Amino acid sequence: MGILERCDTNAVAHLHLNSPERLNALSDEMLAALQSEFDKVKDDRSIRAIVLSGAGKAFCAGHDLKQMTAGRQTEDAGKAYFKDLFDRCAKMMLTIRALPQPVIAQVHGIATAAGCQLVASCDMAVAAQGTRFGVNGVNIGLFCSTPMVALSRNIPRKQAFEMLTTGHFISAEKAEALGLINKVVTPEELAGAATELAETVAAKLGAAVAIGKEAFYNQIEMPMAQAYDYAGDVMVQNMLYRDTAEGIAAFLEKRPPDWQQS
Amino acid sequence: MGILERCDTNAVAHLHLNSPERLNALSDEMLAALQSEFDKVKDDRSIRAIVLSGAGKAFCAGHDLKQMTAGRQTEDAGKAYFKDLFDRCAKMMLTIRALPQPVIAQVHGIATAAGCQLVASCDMAVAAQGTRFGVNGVNIGLFCSTPMVALSRNIPRKQAFEMLTTGHFISAEKAEALGLINKVVTPEELAGAATELAETVAAKLGAAVAIGKEAFYNQIEMPMAQAYDYAGDVMVQNMLYRDTAEGIAAFLEKRPPDWQQS
Amino acid sequence: MGILERCDTNAVAHLHLNSPERLNALSDEMLAALQSEFDKVKDDRSIRAIVLSGAGKAFCAGHDLKQMTAGRQTEDAGKAYFKDLFDRCAKMMLTIRALPQPVIAQVHGIATAAGCQLVASCDMAVAAQGTRFGVNGVNIGLFCSTPMVALSRNIPRKQAFEMLTTGHFISAEKAEALGLINKVVTPEELAGAATELAETVAAKLGAAVAIGKEAFYNQIEMPMAQAYDYAGDVMVQNMLYRDTAEGIAAFLEKRPPDWQQS
Repeated sequence: MGILERCDTNAVAHLHLNSPERLNALSDEMLAALQSEFDKVKDDRSIRAIVLSGAGKAFCAGHDLKQMTAGRQTEDAGKAYFKDLFDRCAKMMLTIRALPQPVIAQVHGIATAAGCQLVASCDMAVAAQGTRFGVNGVNIGLFCSTPMVALSRNIPRKQAFEMLTTGHFISAEKAEALGLINKVVTPEELAGAATELAETVAAKLGAAVAIGKEAFYNQIEMPMAQAYDYAGDVMVQNMLYRDTAEGIAAFLEKRPPDWQQS
Repeated sequence: MGILERCDTNAVAHLHLNSPERLNALSDEMLAALQSEFDKVKDDRSIRAIVLSGAGKAFCAGHDLKQMTAGRQTEDAGKAYFKDLFDRCAKMMLTIRALPQPVIAQVHGIATAAGCQLVASCDMAVAAQGTRFGVNGVNIGLFCSTPMVALSRNIPRKQAFEMLTTGHFISAEKAEALGLINKVVTPEELAGAATELAETVAAKLGAAVAIGKEAFYNQIEMPMAQAYDYAGDVMVQNMLYRDTAEGIAAFLEKRPPDWQQS
Repeated sequence: MGILERCDTNAVAHLHLNSPERLNALSDEMLAALQSEFDKVKDDRSIRAIVLSGAGKAFCAGHDLKQMTAGRQTEDAGKAYFKDLFDRCAKMMLTIRALPQPVIAQVHGIATAAGCQLVASCDMAVAAQGTRFGVNGVNIGLFCSTPMVALSRNIPRKQAFEMLTTGHFISAEKAEALGLINKVVTPEELAGAATELAETVAAKLGAAVAIGKEAFYNQIEMPMAQAYDYAGDVMVQNMLYRDTAEGIAAFLEKRPPDWQQS
């Protein structure tokens, strides 16, 4: 068993962080495994949604502090290593956004620092009651500056600022109210709820979801008029898909669509 | 009776989508009627707020899929028609934002796809209990890319993403909690609540509301320091209005203002 | 006693607006006093958080309308004075964001117009039950254009638009739900809650909080990929602080950190 397991069912790839003794920390090895798996699934047309979960007590506890500390044993006190580490971590987080398939975080236990960033970086998230979310690096003198990039694009400013400067955790219920996650369920329901959400998305036309997801993150950073120009072109492109013509025709004829999903 | 009715009372223009047999779809004709009416009301100083409502079972069910399907019967499979259609639609949505008068959506039944976009594009919205909001084009293979431009500027990212990729509807209560609408009332109270909100705004100094509305959408897309430079100039301009001087003087003298509203 | 009092305890500077007879209006004198105190505290390494409160019935009622009206008695009808006034006000608000120390608004009574802007401009805010928030300049013909710069970056668009165009007040509970403030407490708990929040932040490594706060507001205005580049560099810099190395080592060794806080 590797540190990242994968199991595919019903057009959904289930990725399972499997380093429970380290609370699924984003070590060099874990980052490489995630990057590698995302790069592989990117071109896999048989997969139309991804669920990301973690083994053991925590979803993910952030960077591996022991490994980072070991990285200080260089002439530059770790500077080049840290730069490379944060680059690789940001690349992995941005890869989630760039994947054609929606990625759903299935969160339990705790999601802290870069682990909370991982939740914020996923397109959607479901969490179990009792899960706690924090960006608590400030407690040890390391402000969660990279996690805040994702976090501050999910929740309001003052609430993000409070989490970052107090190190306080928030509950799953609060995380839902703020916009960090989509849904809270009981621990027993967690896997089922994440899978149901993924399979709902996977049942859609993959090409439409892919072009829509790409457009979602592109247009959100544009001024509104430019966003409309861009999104209009995306809609035209989408309208010309063979399966979209079939989907609309089927709807008007009140029958299920005959999609090729290619 | 046309497909868009208008009735003016107390400085409020009530526009009523009147194509109930098509669930007030944004057909070529409806888009043209809305654009024409907005262009007309833009320079009408006697109107200081606008309410947009719909006849029949739904506020608005989005684009007219039959008309769009008919548009495919061209050499380019509808490409030029679709491009023109989404351009006209975006222009109409951006016209709402550019109008000097605040526009309030009075929503009941359902608001889906471009109909949900219409709600998101209005400056404010009031909905009846039981109203459902969705961007469900994904169900037929057409991702709601242009509706998402407006939607994703109203509600948090993960919740917008979920609506767009699952096609699930949200309730009026959820829409209020997320920021898509301002208020939920009973169906009986709906027209009264929208009118009351509109007349509250219409009772203000129209010139101040107009310059403020324009500044609202302009500054929100600027970096903060630039936004302050710009908004400061707007405040100076506003301070120099004759009616604003009168409004402040009246306040200090504890008497009602004698506004010319010109 | 001046119009702005300062009392330092436990690495927290408590600034107290003390012009209760004018509801702590942001007069020329008050703006100058705030600017001067912020400029002083900026380089004071012994201060790691700031609490801003107000004397009397209101936290702050915005600009001083009598003073502004007096400013009209010039050849240009006050134009140059107003421009300078809004420039000074915006500068003070942006100074709060630029301070290395987090600033917490301790709000009671009312916070209106530029007083509401002051709350929105603080990094965090705690309010007493019964506090009312409004940007009600529209009632006297002066749209709150500069307050909206801060407000519209704290709460969703439609809710900000409603406050700005109706002049309606919102409760402390609503302000919390929308993201304008962090917490509502009883009037009796207010000072204690604001102080506790400030002292929690002040107990962290000041250098980490300072670099993080600066990065927070810088990255939030960048496209996401650029934000990650920038935040990654900030994290590297933070990792190389002597006290951060000590903080991480102490955490791994399960002992309290021996911070020099210099």
